[in-house]
Amino acid sequence: MVVIGGGFGGLQAVLKLRRAPVEVTLVDRRNFHLFQPLTYQVATGALSPGEIAYPLRAIFKRNRNVRVLMAEVVGFELDARQVLLAPVVAAGGPATIAYDTLVVGGGSQYSYFGHDEWRAEAAEVKSLESAISVRNRLLAAFEAAELESNNARREPWLTFVVVGAGPTGVEMAGQIGELARDTLRRDFRTIDPRTARILLVEAADRVLTTFPPSLSAKAARSLERLGVTVLTGRTVVGVEAGGVTVADGSGSSQHIASRTVIWAAGVTASSLATQLGELTGAEVDPAGRVTVEPDLTLPGRSEVFALGDMVRVRSATGEPIVFPGVAPVAMQQGRYVAKAIRDRLRSRATPAFRYRDKGNLATIGRRAAVADIKGLKLSGSIAWLTWLLVHIWYLIGFQNRLLVAIRWTSSFTTHGRGTRLIAGPDWRRELDERS
Amino acid sequence: MVVIGGGFGGLQAVLKLRRAPVEVTLVDRRNFHLFQPLTYQVATGALSPGEIAYPLRAIFKRNRNVRVLMAEVVGFELDARQVLLAPVVAAGGPATIAYDTLVVGGGSQYSYFGHDEWRAEAAEVKSLESAISVRNRLLAAFEAAELESNNARREPWLTFVVVGAGPTGVEMAGQIGELARDTLRRDFRTIDPRTARILLVEAADRVLTTFPPSLSAKAARSLERLGVTVLTGRTVVGVEAGGVTVADGSGSSQHIASRTVIWAAGVTASSLATQLGELTGAEVDPAGRVTVEPDLTLPGRSEVFALGDMVRVRSATGEPIVFPGVAPVAMQQGRYVAKAIRDRLRSRATPAFRYRDKGNLATIGRRAAVADIKGLKLSGSIAWLTWLLVHIWYLIGFQNRLLVAIRWTSSFTTHGRGTRLIAGPDWRRELDERS
Repeated sequence: MVVIGGGFGGLQAVLKLRRAPVEVTLVDRRNFHLFQPLTYQVATGALSPGEIAYPLRAIFKRNRNVRVLMAEVVGFELDARQVLLAPVVAAGGPATIAYDTLVVGGGSQYSYFGHDEWRAEAAEVKSLESAISVRNRLLAAFEAAELESNNARREPWLTFVVVGAGPTGVEMAGQIGELARDTLRRDFRTIDPRTARILLVEAADRVLTTFPPSLSAKAARSLERLGVTVLTGRTVVGVEAGGVTVADGSGSSQHIASRTVIWAAGVTASSLATQLGELTGAEVDPAGRVTVEPDLTLPGRSEVFALGDMVRVRSATGEPIVFPGVAPVAMQQGRYVAKAIRDRLRSRATPAFRYRDKGNLATIGRRAAVADIKGLKLSGSIAWLTWLLVHIWYLIGFQNRLLVAIRWTSSFTTHGRGTRLIAGPDWRRELDERS
Repeated sequence: MVVIGGGFGGLQAVLKLRRAPVEVTLVDRRNFHLFQPLTYQVATGALSPGEIAYPLRAIFKRNRNVRVLMAEVVGFELDARQVLLAPVVAAGGPATIAYDTLVVGGGSQYSYFGHDEWRAEAAEVKSLESAISVRNRLLAAFEAAELESNNARREPWLTFVVVGAGPTGVEMAGQIGELARDTLRRDFRTIDPRTARILLVEAADRVLTTFPPSLSAKAARSLERLGVTVLTGRTVVGVEAGGVTVADGSGSSQHIASRTVIWAAGVTASSLATQLGELTGAEVDPAGRVTVEPDLTLPGRSEVFALGDMVRVRSATGEPIVFPGVAPVAMQQGRYVAKAIRDRLRSRATPAFRYRDKGNLATIGRRAAVADIKGLKLSGSIAWLTWLLVHIWYLIGFQNRLLVAIRWTSSFTTHGRGTRLIAGPDWRRELDERS
């Protein structure tokens, strides 16, 4: 069998099949599993990339029935039961790979409301590379402000706009607040980083719309304590080199001069979802998600599973359900698919996939988080501690857990962020292009 | 006063002056101090970049008399006592900075025997970026070999050439040996990484020429146990996309087909050294080092100090001395310059700089190292443990010490390397260009 994608869904599927009598090929274009919920911490210098990524080959090194193939998936031939591949390293590698069972977890990426030209200015933090790029931009903005003697030109360097107030946007805004008000407080001699403006722009009328309104209000208050200005009911209608234009419901618009815009609004599913939709006739929604059957297979293709945030799942009543695009959903779906495959080997039936919602967590900053656990609403230190333990627990690899625990303990006690480096092979060119 | 360069020399100078009644501006084009002796560990996936780099601003955040300026130094006007700057972040910042006292620690870079065109193929591991680039190439070579079905085309992917058997070259070759024979041993299903050929090419007749011959022989044996073939008495005369050409003393030459060549031979001083030589009439040697007076000042410019591996130091007899290009030399020179400046404030004389050689250390792999400590020759586990403790001790920041200690303990016990990621903003383009 072939599993596409070493994200949360694909990884769980392979982990739960590694001791089953199956031969698994895990295809990914990257050689590591990324703990995506913490990429924003790389973007703000709190963690080092190697601490939230783990080599896929290392995970399965003792499982001779699991093979990792570093390649990009470009298409499918479902009748021939083949996946079409493009090489990632050198020109080598097979052009196709055959499967008896296929699991597709292609994930999603940020969409820019159809304005792909915004991408260059408004960086996102989904991949490790984009997180490093955001880190370079954030830190370089403070450096540029320190060097800029003209007040009018300095201000846009000290204005940070985060678009989208879902968990990632809230976390990013909160972390920039901490960076400015706490970590960098004593670092400069000309500017006072605490004067930085951090704006969180959200189209809805509150932050964290997937949480109960009372927790949204608590999160907004925590953000404001960190110096973040929450602008709800505002839509971004333009992103230029010098800032963003936001419009409110009344039709009036406002330009915000900012040199650092971070995008955390709206995702679109992997193009593999659309391809699977076209090949099987399964419905594809406007966000590019393909609709799978209640058992996560494609219609008429019981040997093809799809999972994670690239799918909607048809319910028993036929209605498609959009589960939140979070790790627990993908992980449960991965484990479900593994179980379904093991059941098939024993000719057992598997009941439809059911998502067990264990709760919803978002962190804002030091001892500030909100948690909605089966109706139990938590905020402040207790929610933050829960968030902390859950995230350390789910990190792959004991070493990473320990390293992240130390980084966080140290950040908490010293208010420092050790990895605030302007670095990466592109650091110089990146800064040049934006100056 | 102005200190150029936040390397080992410049950093020590500022550290030892931060409580003195002076105003210091530390100029660096990067925002961090890099623990360069461990960059090769980033290159082989043993450490994460953030673990061997530390933000300069964080080091001096509590010292209001120390200002960090992120800019590139492009020249000097010694009569006007000014340093000429070029911006690194955005277009902002001053074009010049005035000094009463100047300390220049510009460091060095790898030279390619006058063949700068070799640089693209033969990567080095001096900067954080080049180390990440080498890591990507090393790991991608194994991935490419796994995917390559043609034996003749696979072999160059599994052939690694390290040029230069000084400490860095020996460490790199040893680490690639460990990577192939130990860390990656179980990672692949088609290739056996243990069949990788690792060649260490050295022009001299032994490795580690700065060590006593008996330790060179021990190091060579340790390397061979890790599967490294040591080719001494061989000079690289060509580096192409497909490999290197080496010539021996007899005039015959040999082509080695390899897709991964790492350069660790021959450094040239920062161009700032040549500039200072031209401006003051101080001698500049073929490696670009400027000759400073016994008190590390430039001739006729007692207010300008230069230090580190961009200088030779004139001895009492007038003969220039080349100290080894290692951290302890630069650190002692940095502390010396700080003391000289404090002495001047009190109108005291400072005796000439004297290097206290505390010993010479090089590591090859697990429990394999050599140490020459004031004539005491150590090898094996005891030398390795000494190396380990010295390197952890000298890392900047308690957090980094702890993180590196954990990474190493974990690598030692599990034989793993957690950060073997093919990543960085350029990862895809880099692989594309080389395929």
